[in-house]
Amino acid sequence: MTETSLPNVVAIGGGTGLSTVLRGLKRLNCKISAVVTVADDGGSSGRLRKDMGILPPGDIRNCIVALAEAESDMTALFNHRFQKGELKGHNFGNLFLAAMTEMTGDFQEAVRAMSRILAVKGTVLPATLSDVVLMAEMEDGSIVSGEANISAANGKIKRLRLHPEDPPALSEAVCEIENADVIAIGPGSLYTSVIPNLLVQGIREAIERSNAQKVYVCNIMTQPGETHNYTAFDHIKAIQEHAGRLFTYVIINTGIPPVKLRENYANENKYLVVPDLDVIEAQGYVPITGNFIASDDLAHHNSEKIADAILALARPSMNAKEGLY
Amino acid sequence: MTETSLPNVVAIGGGTGLSTVLRGLKRLNCKISAVVTVADDGGSSGRLRKDMGILPPGDIRNCIVALAEAESDMTALFNHRFQKGELKGHNFGNLFLAAMTEMTGDFQEAVRAMSRILAVKGTVLPATLSDVVLMAEMEDGSIVSGEANISAANGKIKRLRLHPEDPPALSEAVCEIENADVIAIGPGSLYTSVIPNLLVQGIREAIERSNAQKVYVCNIMTQPGETHNYTAFDHIKAIQEHAGRLFTYVIINTGIPPVKLRENYANENKYLVVPDLDVIEAQGYVPITGNFIASDDLAHHNSEKIADAILALARPSMNAKEGLY
Repeated sequence: MTETSLPNVVAIGGGTGLSTVLRGLKRLNCKISAVVTVADDGGSSGRLRKDMGILPPGDIRNCIVALAEAESDMTALFNHRFQKGELKGHNFGNLFLAAMTEMTGDFQEAVRAMSRILAVKGTVLPATLSDVVLMAEMEDGSIVSGEANISAANGKIKRLRLHPEDPPALSEAVCEIENADVIAIGPGSLYTSVIPNLLVQGIREAIERSNAQKVYVCNIMTQPGETHNYTAFDHIKAIQEHAGRLFTYVIINTGIPPVKLRENYANENKYLVVPDLDVIEAQGYVPITGNFIASDDLAHHNSEKIADAILALARPSMNAKEGLY
Repeated sequence: MTETSLPNVVAIGGGTGLSTVLRGLKRLNCKISAVVTVADDGGSSGRLRKDMGILPPGDIRNCIVALAEAESDMTALFNHRFQKGELKGHNFGNLFLAAMTEMTGDFQEAVRAMSRILAVKGTVLPATLSDVVLMAEMEDGSIVSGEANISAANGKIKRLRLHPEDPPALSEAVCEIENADVIAIGPGSLYTSVIPNLLVQGIREAIERSNAQKVYVCNIMTQPGETHNYTAFDHIKAIQEHAGRLFTYVIINTGIPPVKLRENYANENKYLVVPDLDVIEAQGYVPITGNFIASDDLAHHNSEKIADAILALARPSMNAKEGLY
């Protein structure tokens, strides 16, 4: 298979969920683009955003590090979190992106520079270069502003929007989505990592237009303050209500972690997402099921299994491209 | 000339003075080691030192950047000083050295990593890895502690010492000094950049032992709070009083900058260092004179002229080495 006929995979999301997918994909024969939410306002990212008026770098940094060819000293360095003094809590990679952005005035150039240094396989793209704030209307009618506050509010989220409402999508991200063979959305925090990307109109419309196979990777565990008590279909429904029907396939974990692990998660008010496959199929979605759990110690996705399942979707469209059917 | 027969040049100092020498030397056919003072406690370096308990990185960073093969985006990045927020005033390169040191627990490894990234020609070595504080006994009998305070005290310095008194010299620095063909001391702040290196006993003794040609590069202008009203010989005498007779040659500027430039400097209480050549010769030193001024705008050393004058001293000893005399 030549370079140009490698399948184009676009992974959309943020946080550790997207990183997990990218770590799996980079080992496979494909061209990777990551489209990343930039509405983070907590932690090191939030401090840099407020302080310097730059886009919050944390999610972008995580993706770049996940796509680094080799785990090197440099990868560890860019992930290093300062332990002491006024820098405490900042990641070195965030400071790199902040310095480059301040120096060149160009966040994308900063992302490209960090990608070059870490010999990244693929391209990491912010969904928008606008400085957007996430706003949530809660079930009780209150409005919560800011990603960190939304998770912390620990209420039931009714409706999410961006402020300002209509940020322009990054044209490079739109282009990659349009040319994709597979588009994978998630996994990750439903309201604060996944949906924010889809609220960018240009991103949402590009996904609709694209002839790619489209798949949503559903979370394994519920998340307090975001998806407490959600079934798999509740996740899908939330996306549908915010962005319409964007995908056909849904990757759903049906593995059951050991009781000890479930107890640990229950202590943090996190539970297995119930795979309500009948409802999902009845709604016209196609579930792809399996045990996607990483290990007996952590109910995260196994990055290799997830990447295999995503890339498998590329084959029919690749074959069509090559004129085999 | 083969790689192994290139002259070994060791430049000792700190601050912008040492950087100027290094920028000149890197264009010439020689092997460069920079031995750098690490007693800085002002600015970004001082904040990191106090906050994180690491060696102050500023002087080291300046030398690494000066030795970078090409002036690249990366060089600019490592010199970039944050403009906003809590990071304001920090240099990115300092944060790099701080992060690497915190991560590996090894300041020298951090210096090596930065040197690799910037494709540095030569080796940058701290004089000691100990956390030393500079103490000054002033003419009025008062004791001032800390590099930044000593310059700021604006008094006459009588005697300088390190605390703790006897820090171990970096063995790699000792080795480079012993194997040097030329050792250049200065230019730069006499009491806060040059002499601190020589107060490290192992460094001072290695210079004494070395068969290298040894030269002191005297400052062009006096410096308020350090060398106000000093002649060239007053500079030499200060070194002699702290560290004995360490060199034979003295590079002394005899060029006179335009009146406008001298007026600008006079407004900052800085004056031309008087080249009292007779006194210097009478004391058994060999002056190397010339117009070493960089430009009509700044009374800094011209890095190429200084480097040429330093390297010229290598020739007799190189020839001896090669058995030509």
